[in-house]
Amino acid sequence: MKKLSQMTDRLMGQPMFHVLEKANELERQSNKKLLRFEIGDIDLPPFQHIIDDTKKALDEGHYRYVPSSGIDDFKIAVAEEMLSTHGYEPDLSNIMAIPANAAIDHIIRCILDAGDEVLYPSPGFSTYNSVVGYTGVVGVPYLLNADDDFGYDFDYIESLVTSKTKLMIINSPSNPLGRVMSREEVEDVCYLCRKYDLYLLSDEIYSKLIYEKEFISPYFYEDMRKRTIVQNGFSKNYSMPGWRLGYIVAPMEIIKKVSLLFQTVYSCLPSFIQHAGISAFNSNKELMDERLRVLVNRRNILSQGLNTIPGIQCRPADGSIFLFPDIRNTGMTSNEFVDFVMSECSVVVLPGNVFGENGEGFFRISFARSEDQITEAIKNMRLAFRGAG
Amino acid sequence: MKKLSQMTDRLMGQPMFHVLEKANELERQSNKKLLRFEIGDIDLPPFQHIIDDTKKALDEGHYRYVPSSGIDDFKIAVAEEMLSTHGYEPDLSNIMAIPANAAIDHIIRCILDAGDEVLYPSPGFSTYNSVVGYTGVVGVPYLLNADDDFGYDFDYIESLVTSKTKLMIINSPSNPLGRVMSREEVEDVCYLCRKYDLYLLSDEIYSKLIYEKEFISPYFYEDMRKRTIVQNGFSKNYSMPGWRLGYIVAPMEIIKKVSLLFQTVYSCLPSFIQHAGISAFNSNKELMDERLRVLVNRRNILSQGLNTIPGIQCRPADGSIFLFPDIRNTGMTSNEFVDFVMSECSVVVLPGNVFGENGEGFFRISFARSEDQITEAIKNMRLAFRGAG
Repeated sequence: MKKLSQMTDRLMGQPMFHVLEKANELERQSNKKLLRFEIGDIDLPPFQHIIDDTKKALDEGHYRYVPSSGIDDFKIAVAEEMLSTHGYEPDLSNIMAIPANAAIDHIIRCILDAGDEVLYPSPGFSTYNSVVGYTGVVGVPYLLNADDDFGYDFDYIESLVTSKTKLMIINSPSNPLGRVMSREEVEDVCYLCRKYDLYLLSDEIYSKLIYEKEFISPYFYEDMRKRTIVQNGFSKNYSMPGWRLGYIVAPMEIIKKVSLLFQTVYSCLPSFIQHAGISAFNSNKELMDERLRVLVNRRNILSQGLNTIPGIQCRPADGSIFLFPDIRNTGMTSNEFVDFVMSECSVVVLPGNVFGENGEGFFRISFARSEDQITEAIKNMRLAFRGAG
Repeated sequence: MKKLSQMTDRLMGQPMFHVLEKANELERQSNKKLLRFEIGDIDLPPFQHIIDDTKKALDEGHYRYVPSSGIDDFKIAVAEEMLSTHGYEPDLSNIMAIPANAAIDHIIRCILDAGDEVLYPSPGFSTYNSVVGYTGVVGVPYLLNADDDFGYDFDYIESLVTSKTKLMIINSPSNPLGRVMSREEVEDVCYLCRKYDLYLLSDEIYSKLIYEKEFISPYFYEDMRKRTIVQNGFSKNYSMPGWRLGYIVAPMEIIKKVSLLFQTVYSCLPSFIQHAGISAFNSNKELMDERLRVLVNRRNILSQGLNTIPGIQCRPADGSIFLFPDIRNTGMTSNEFVDFVMSECSVVVLPGNVFGENGEGFFRISFARSEDQITEAIKNMRLAFRGAG
């Protein structure tokens, strides 16, 4: 048989799915349950009204072909949500329904040709790197400083901009860092994007999962809206990973092109799924606040527990559902650490290096797991590291 | 702002979605309902047990992240289905869950680089051409002969094969032609693919909607399985367009690569959606047969009605949900005809030329609409063409 396309040699997928499948396989083989902290899946069910409204939409026949950019009712709900969260109500022509991960792929491909350059955070969400890898776009990871709480060094970032740079990506709250960007940091990003005429993709997928700081978006700034793509979704903010629903808010020309690409590849997003999104936006504040209280409590138990283990240093996350503890004092590499805790503690986590080279010496662990699981994981790790130390 | 990527200049989307949106707009503006025959959406609801099982899967919590290639239960159901329809039970490593339209995009991109050539039918489903157009792959449409019931001329098709040809696409039953390939035609395609070492994408999306002939797949032939990708889905066969669920059966190396690409772009397909697919496979024969009886009756009413209109010649479809009537005797082009029937008869159909150059002089009309709508459309067209004649 003939060789497949050259593109296939560059496909790497998403590392968390590899670990997910590896852990599934290990569970099947050993017939024992592992403690699963590797995937960004919140261990709280979606609110009942969202499930009920999905079912209602099915009963009402919302399963026909619909416009590729989304149904108007969903776009109207996004516009109202943006008004409440970003202080500005975009026109419906600036909005489309699209799964958040597909949005990253489609936006990169609609803005950059092979050889063009995109700046993205490192450590950062692995899809940026995976998409860049297979498309032939040149990825320019800007390293966040591990020894300065993964802060931004803007002189250094500016030095990475070339005449080929067309897009910058930010992600606050950050996966895997759990870090929320300060107003000053966001404004410095805006300054760079204006100065070098860059598009800015603001990946806000954890925007409703903030525990400590204030959420700041570049879309707050009027003159940034012509160059900013806000990308968001329901998997994290509303515990709805299985709906595969998200949206982008962007300049009309970008919406037009991303819609056309999405139409070519996917036709359209299920209408009953979009109705579930409208339902999620209608979740009342008490429910949302209660969920945050549960998550912040788990975050505290996990980070405090990890800090009792020799060699591990962990600061609590400002936002998201992840801790990114420092294991450089254990003397293990990220991969060694991950293998060790999987085999010795039955705990599945991700090595920091899958999020970028300077994630080496760290690991990512979700705190969106039950208190029992968290307690057991800490107990197992404490025992194993006492033995290892 | 900087220019978007060169790829965006080549995006054309799917013509039926453009007409869908144009007709929606016209309905909004004129505040009157059009008779919608343009989209491949069956006007029969999915079976109630499929809706019920989708809801049950939601209640049971099937909304977490799952492996990108699909859940095992879904793959097992596909394997069993293939045994019953194709006489061969593929291994689970040869199966993945993926929306059927995305499968076309992903398979083309995983097999062909820019500059490589793919053979596809003309008139044929527009996504083949749309994907080829934006990716830079070279599309080589093989023209089916309008004056010979759109039959295959294999000497001519063979003359189109070059050293760059890597993939051939067939689609039986055909959209837009409604034509089912004969055993001899399928075997001639197999011969060509063996002789020139081509991959073969068999788009079988209408495989359960056959009224006259026997369904033949290249996957029936053992030695073809290493080069054949069977692509199928639930939108048409089970009236489930809104679930966006399909699957492919292919050599393991292709499944691996397509899964990785799908993982990179989409992460995974909703688990409750895959459970709906399992439910659809379990539909009993009486339900499926009754649905076919309804459709064949509508096909007959529509094709007979169209044949009473001066200048229109229509043969009944062997399969699918489409008629592709000949309007060359009306003296109108396809576009003129479509505009005329939209404005004068409130009937929305698609021009044949969107399916390829030799679709000019034809139009596509779905017969998966209610008898009332079909009768009204025929009445309106008869009146208008009497006036026009």
